[in-house]
Amino acid sequence: MDVCLIQTLILFCSLICGFWAENPSNKSTPNIIIILMDDMGWGDVGVFGQPSKETPNLDSMAAQGMLFPNFYTANPLCSPSRASLLTGRLPVRNGFYTTNAHARNAYTPQEIVGGISKDEILLPQVLKKKGYVNKIIGKWHLGHRAHHLPLEHGFDEWFGAPNCHFGPYNSSDRPNVPVYNNSQMVGRYYEEFGIDKKTGESNLTQIYLEEGLDFIFHQNMAQRPFFLYWTADATHAPVYASKRFLGKSQRGRYGDAVMELDYSVGQMLARLRALGIDKDTFVFFTSDNGAAVMSGPKQSGSNGPFLCGKETTFEGGMREPAIAWWPGHIPAGMVSQQLGTVMDLFSTSLSVAGLSVPDDRLIDGLDLSPVLHNNTLINRPIFYYRGNEMMAVRVGPYKAHYWTWSNSWEEFNQGINFCPGQEVAGVTTHTQQDHTMQPLIFHLGRDPGEKYPISVVTKEYQDALSRITPVVDKHKKGLVPGVPQLNMCDMAVMV
Amino acid sequence: MDVCLIQTLILFCSLICGFWAENPSNKSTPNIIIILMDDMGWGDVGVFGQPSKETPNLDSMAAQGMLFPNFYTANPLCSPSRASLLTGRLPVRNGFYTTNAHARNAYTPQEIVGGISKDEILLPQVLKKKGYVNKIIGKWHLGHRAHHLPLEHGFDEWFGAPNCHFGPYNSSDRPNVPVYNNSQMVGRYYEEFGIDKKTGESNLTQIYLEEGLDFIFHQNMAQRPFFLYWTADATHAPVYASKRFLGKSQRGRYGDAVMELDYSVGQMLARLRALGIDKDTFVFFTSDNGAAVMSGPKQSGSNGPFLCGKETTFEGGMREPAIAWWPGHIPAGMVSQQLGTVMDLFSTSLSVAGLSVPDDRLIDGLDLSPVLHNNTLINRPIFYYRGNEMMAVRVGPYKAHYWTWSNSWEEFNQGINFCPGQEVAGVTTHTQQDHTMQPLIFHLGRDPGEKYPISVVTKEYQDALSRITPVVDKHKKGLVPGVPQLNMCDMAVMV
Repeated sequence: MDVCLIQTLILFCSLICGFWAENPSNKSTPNIIIILMDDMGWGDVGVFGQPSKETPNLDSMAAQGMLFPNFYTANPLCSPSRASLLTGRLPVRNGFYTTNAHARNAYTPQEIVGGISKDEILLPQVLKKKGYVNKIIGKWHLGHRAHHLPLEHGFDEWFGAPNCHFGPYNSSDRPNVPVYNNSQMVGRYYEEFGIDKKTGESNLTQIYLEEGLDFIFHQNMAQRPFFLYWTADATHAPVYASKRFLGKSQRGRYGDAVMELDYSVGQMLARLRALGIDKDTFVFFTSDNGAAVMSGPKQSGSNGPFLCGKETTFEGGMREPAIAWWPGHIPAGMVSQQLGTVMDLFSTSLSVAGLSVPDDRLIDGLDLSPVLHNNTLINRPIFYYRGNEMMAVRVGPYKAHYWTWSNSWEEFNQGINFCPGQEVAGVTTHTQQDHTMQPLIFHLGRDPGEKYPISVVTKEYQDALSRITPVVDKHKKGLVPGVPQLNMCDMAVMV
Repeated sequence: MDVCLIQTLILFCSLICGFWAENPSNKSTPNIIIILMDDMGWGDVGVFGQPSKETPNLDSMAAQGMLFPNFYTANPLCSPSRASLLTGRLPVRNGFYTTNAHARNAYTPQEIVGGISKDEILLPQVLKKKGYVNKIIGKWHLGHRAHHLPLEHGFDEWFGAPNCHFGPYNSSDRPNVPVYNNSQMVGRYYEEFGIDKKTGESNLTQIYLEEGLDFIFHQNMAQRPFFLYWTADATHAPVYASKRFLGKSQRGRYGDAVMELDYSVGQMLARLRALGIDKDTFVFFTSDNGAAVMSGPKQSGSNGPFLCGKETTFEGGMREPAIAWWPGHIPAGMVSQQLGTVMDLFSTSLSVAGLSVPDDRLIDGLDLSPVLHNNTLINRPIFYYRGNEMMAVRVGPYKAHYWTWSNSWEEFNQGINFCPGQEVAGVTTHTQQDHTMQPLIFHLGRDPGEKYPISVVTKEYQDALSRITPVVDKHKKGLVPGVPQLNMCDMAVMV
């Protein structure tokens, strides 16, 4: 009898007999699942306003949980966003930035020397104290040299890749990205793990899903608390979906990828229910940065009503879809107006597990438990960074831009547009505009699209600024930048 | 004992005893309520993607009913849209257009001579055949001379005004707009029915709500089938809300107005439930045209991810929020991908009442009953008109623009922008651009924002065009334009 059949039989029994449902619903070490999408935009999910309404599983998840319309990443690019999620700290603190140029976004391409510092404490490292088994499935993106890989930073298991699935590359000059099963390389994208760039077909999401379902099943069998960090990357260009989903969306290939990811979320939640551990598992769904609208309509998603996208510190670059789910603990059908960030997932997950955040360093993440359980509102700012430059800050409904930049004239003139179809004079600038003496201020409640800077001669502007200035001063005063880890590239470090 | 107290007691009894719930749930003449918003955009409702998520009643209505993300008006302006809803016919057929200039939008300002033609058959006129009592509450906008008013066109009752609540005006030169109770003028906006333009305070929505609740109550008491056309106008500039709602929204005054309208919808649905007639009442919620984004963030709403707004034939001007609700008849929590229009409310309402549409004229509205009951998809095009010019057509996911125009350079240079923060080269044009020889084609599934015209050299373009061309040819061949009713203005006709 193969493993799959045994699993099916046990699942069937769980459903019929309700046997496994007798697990305690107030376990002191609830399981934690963080589902992180790649370049998926705020506007890509039905419940957030995607006109195609093709995400029934995520929409149900929201109906059974709590929706966060004001949830942010820590940086509008993959690597620093992911470093922040796992450390609870802004990239400028955890070192996931570069000082090579002003306000430059940096990530971990194949040539990068750097990666996550050994001095940083990652979420799975702390969870281990309470016996959690930690697994990452999908994209890591925190460095690809041996000492940067997940198993060196608190994860017990890994199935996935250190980098993006760009390619295919010529295997001798520039090899395709490796895929790991724990510490073993088990193949490469495009070679052993196919992605047909012509048709968009790849069964990677299905592999990641099976890995996820298996992990949930086995940890439950072993009665061990687990942390699953599920980071499938089908919505990152080149976007892909498996045969079953290709051509099924109204939105083309990108929508097909979204549908398959939505299906996968549904399958994982169903698995928790079938095992009777839904009330023992805190699940959070979000994305690493805004939709990569510069890639065009066939390879990128939607940021809904927001301005620009990935790489920018406008709302389209940093506001993320976000849903919390924990039946019996988070009341169903709630909407929280809390300003949240991916860094809160660090602090909140630790709180869920009954653990404290490290007390030897500054943690930017908030413990959202009071929000999740009582829909409390906690007053806190949101900082929008590019590199080590604080570009903007949000305090309450007001957002002040101290610097604006979409992308360079050079890129723009080559047809690379970070804000396609959008242009706000003096805001979506193609040079780095310094507004530090008189920040541009927007009211994101009545102007979520950042189209109407509030006139500087109004009382509203002065009131907003006087609310924002001390927040910025305090932040800058206490800021001790970490050593930048992403300054150096070298072809020799390629895997 | 006053009327209100009697109503309260009867309602209380209904709730406690379930007495009134014994009404038949398959009545042959179900009640019909059409709730039409004024200048409310697709993106103003939580379930359609408004980030503030401040419409819990509409969101619940959708969860209990059917959502239409692809629902359209017949014209991006109030008057012709409303004429189309009530006649089931495009403005170019029912005469609600002007030929004074090419592709000019026309409505019924106070100076207009024209109005709805006596030759048109309006929804309430047909409903009368089955004994329906018809009431309009709110804005009429189909002409204000005596023979154009609602009671001359099938309505039995009216509380509201013939025109917009612009003003206040100097009462001698240009009087404020009258408010009618049936055929009696009972006062004027700004005078007897106050709107404080400084604070935005007005209790008009509350008056309309009370009128609506009373009408429902009394028709039910009398056991008469009713048609209620509830057309409150708080989201049309100058926007207003009553004291209880002012300052309550995250979105400023416009959001306050939306919250009060949302509350009102909730109250009406609750009244139906309390009377036990929810299963006997077909309710449809939509808006007359896209958000009037040219009015700025304090006086207008959101069209979500769509291009431009009111007055334009881009999606932002014509795609509407739409929800159908009929417990026990329409399955709960459904999303329909049907392309629908306000004209379908004519045909569908008649079908609900067991009546046929007039057979002596061309009706553009579809009977959506198969969609409502079985989520069937009916193949049909959407035509986008300005005046008597067909600007664009949608067939399946494809939209072809034969003419593009946002607004004139003259207006634009004065700071009037119909597409604030948006600009798509060659699309949001400030001159009337003729594309009839080679229409601009968009795929609205992957590009709902109309940012990426499909290249004319692709097979996709040719395939889409060959699908669209016969639809347009057929439409134009069969088109017999009605006599334009909105060509003449004359200060002497002011009420």
